Amino acid sequence: MKLRYSTTSPFVRKIVVTLNELGLDGQVERIPSDVLKREVREKLPNPLGKVPCLETDDGMVLYDSPVIVEYLDSLKGGGKLIPASGKPRWDALRRQAIGDGILENTVLCFIETLRKPERQSAGWIAHNRGGSERAIKALEAEADQLSGPVNIGTITIAVALDFFDMHFPDAGWRAAAPKLAKWLDDFKERPSMKASVLVDPRKSA
Amino acid sequence: MKLRYSTTSPFVRKIVVTLNELGLDGQVERIPSDVLKREVREKLPNPLGKVPCLETDDGMVLYDSPVIVEYLDSLKGGGKLIPASGKPRWDALRRQAIGDGILENTVLCFIETLRKPERQSAGWIAHNRGGSERAIKALEAEADQLSGPVNIGTITIAVALDFFDMHFPDAGWRAAAPKLAKWLDDFKERPSMKASVLVDPRKSA
Repeated sequence: MKLRYSTTSPFVRKIVVTLNELGLDGQVERIPSDVLKREVREKLPNPLGKVPCLETDDGMVLYDSPVIVEYLDSLKGGGKLIPASGKPRWDALRRQAIGDGILENTVLCFIETLRKPERQSAGWIAHNRGGSERAIKALEAEADQLSGPVNIGTITIAVALDFFDMHFPDAGWRAAAPKLAKWLDDFKERPSMKASVLVDPRKSA
Repeated sequence: MKLRYSTTSPFVRKIVVTLNELGLDGQVERIPSDVLKREVREKLPNPLGKVPCLETDDGMVLYDSPVIVEYLDSLKGGGKLIPASGKPRWDALRRQAIGDGILENTVLCFIETLRKPERQSAGWIAHNRGGSERAIKALEAEADQLSGPVNIGTITIAVALDFFDMHFPDAGWRAAAPKLAKWLDDFKERPSMKASVLVDPRKSA
């Protein structure tokens, strides 16, 4: 398999963590793809020009990250990182959606900072950051349920909170969400998380 | 079940079409939720403040649209609008991702037009519109495969192309993608599509 990836993309990090947790690391060739460059975007096998994008050994091209995660899980028989059915499945998928939502909001905030200052909108940043902060507050209420077997819900939430921390280091959410903060600190000790720490795009440019 | 919905959201339209195609229309109470209003967003059961959001009869709150579609499909035994396994499943999910990507890009273009003119970025609109146009071009190459049983891939692509048409009526993609255009025209004749035509947010304000 070939994975189009970038060291700054949190959605790619979801896939790298998934590969590591499933023991599939060795079966994937990583192809760096700097999708901030137009010529890279336009030649990507994903016509939307985004990473992650996975080319399978039998010639399929898969995206976006939830689809790739499910495919990788299926290679190990299914039900490993995405519970097979029932409430555990819906909880994991809903939590993946919360994490992806936090990531999308935070990416939009970052992109906003790439504009000329006079074209930036403080309201747009506040809108997106506010959605993420509401999501973090909601996660605190279910933090007790995040322990136990790792799954795509908890992976995505951990990647999302770590990305939020990178972009808003002074947000101070830990005081209002102490159980979630403790859970995150523990989760970040997993080898899969330690092996996939992102590069800060504001420092790699 | 209760569906938080809006008559302008294409992601809600995916769910409305799904309910119709599965024959589940009568089991869902629709609760209008104008998430452009901050006070509505902040009280939504989805902490991200977005629709669609489904409350199930056994008390779960589900989002985003791919999760809701899969849940609804499972209520009918599974495998109805999302093929159960193998290449048909990956094709349907990948196509859903293409459609969702076109929708996300187009929503971002619309949101950009809500800014004060001096804060708008023509480059950002071109970037997002360009991604959608590449996706449409790629879909033309597989247009022959879109006929046959309706699934979440084809539903999402049809909703996405119709939304793209609403926002970029002069884009002229049909000349370069005649097979896709013909397929869309046929698909839009489905009762599920006719019963879910969106309100143009630029005209409903």
